[in-house]
Amino acid sequence: MSNGTASPVAAVTPEGLLAHWQGHRRITRRMIEAYPEDQLFTHSIGGMRTFGQLAMEILTMGPAMVRGTVTGEWSDNRDRAPRPKAEMLRLWDEATQQIDELWPQIPPQRFQETMTAFGTFTGVTSDLLLYVIDNEVHHRGQGYVYLRSLGVEPPAFYDRS
Amino acid sequence: MSNGTASPVAAVTPEGLLAHWQGHRRITRRMIEAYPEDQLFTHSIGGMRTFGQLAMEILTMGPAMVRGTVTGEWSDNRDRAPRPKAEMLRLWDEATQQIDELWPQIPPQRFQETMTAFGTFTGVTSDLLLYVIDNEVHHRGQGYVYLRSLGVEPPAFYDRS
Repeated sequence: MSNGTASPVAAVTPEGLLAHWQGHRRITRRMIEAYPEDQLFTHSIGGMRTFGQLAMEILTMGPAMVRGTVTGEWSDNRDRAPRPKAEMLRLWDEATQQIDELWPQIPPQRFQETMTAFGTFTGVTSDLLLYVIDNEVHHRGQGYVYLRSLGVEPPAFYDRS
Repeated sequence: MSNGTASPVAAVTPEGLLAHWQGHRRITRRMIEAYPEDQLFTHSIGGMRTFGQLAMEILTMGPAMVRGTVTGEWSDNRDRAPRPKAEMLRLWDEATQQIDELWPQIPPQRFQETMTAFGTFTGVTSDLLLYVIDNEVHHRGQGYVYLRSLGVEPPAFYDRS
């Protein structure tokens, strides 16, 4: 059956992109779990941000991005204050649920539309969503080095379960 | 106009995914350029691989992945031997061109089909392609820490030009 419409071919479907992201988010959650609590907001290499600060950025950016994509309303939570690991994991799980609930509400055509995220970043929605996912992978890669430098084995990158 | 076919909605189109990847690849190329040549295959933190080894993995995996996706033939180049930066950049540019030439030959339906990459990794093609891109972002994030630890400012993560 031919396509017969202007509907673009999918390299990645909306469901596929959500599953991809949540697979990465499971790794990042395991990173937070694996990180020594007393080093989470103190350990750093080369003057870079601590993994706790990076994880708080990742944690707050995700649901805010999807909510903005759905509603056009952008909240920018800049709270990177140190907090217990248990609280971070609780906030992480809330974010996971929020993303799962909001994502199916993204109108299908929205992915290829141009929008301005957080009042600042203008681009095609799919690029902006990929940016948030890449930002997580990028900073988590940073966290892998921090963790190894502390003598702790990071979670497997290939395990998305 | 309704879709009216079984064609899945695109969160990311084939052209969009290629542009996204090549944007990341431009950052990785800048990382290789920025890296002190005498540290490329020697500097390491926490017993992890050198950035030179990681960059060679990224460099060889990309075109092999796309070629395999198009042809079903998988080559696995495991050469991670130290080499001059100029040679790496030359190989990098060859890989860029190969990816650009091969990518449009991926049959559109292939992205949602299951395949076995490199004779080992079975999954949906789009997930396997995203894996190669994520692997690059992940290891490059590692490289950012190495570079900062050497006192060198890495290229901007947000600049995909």
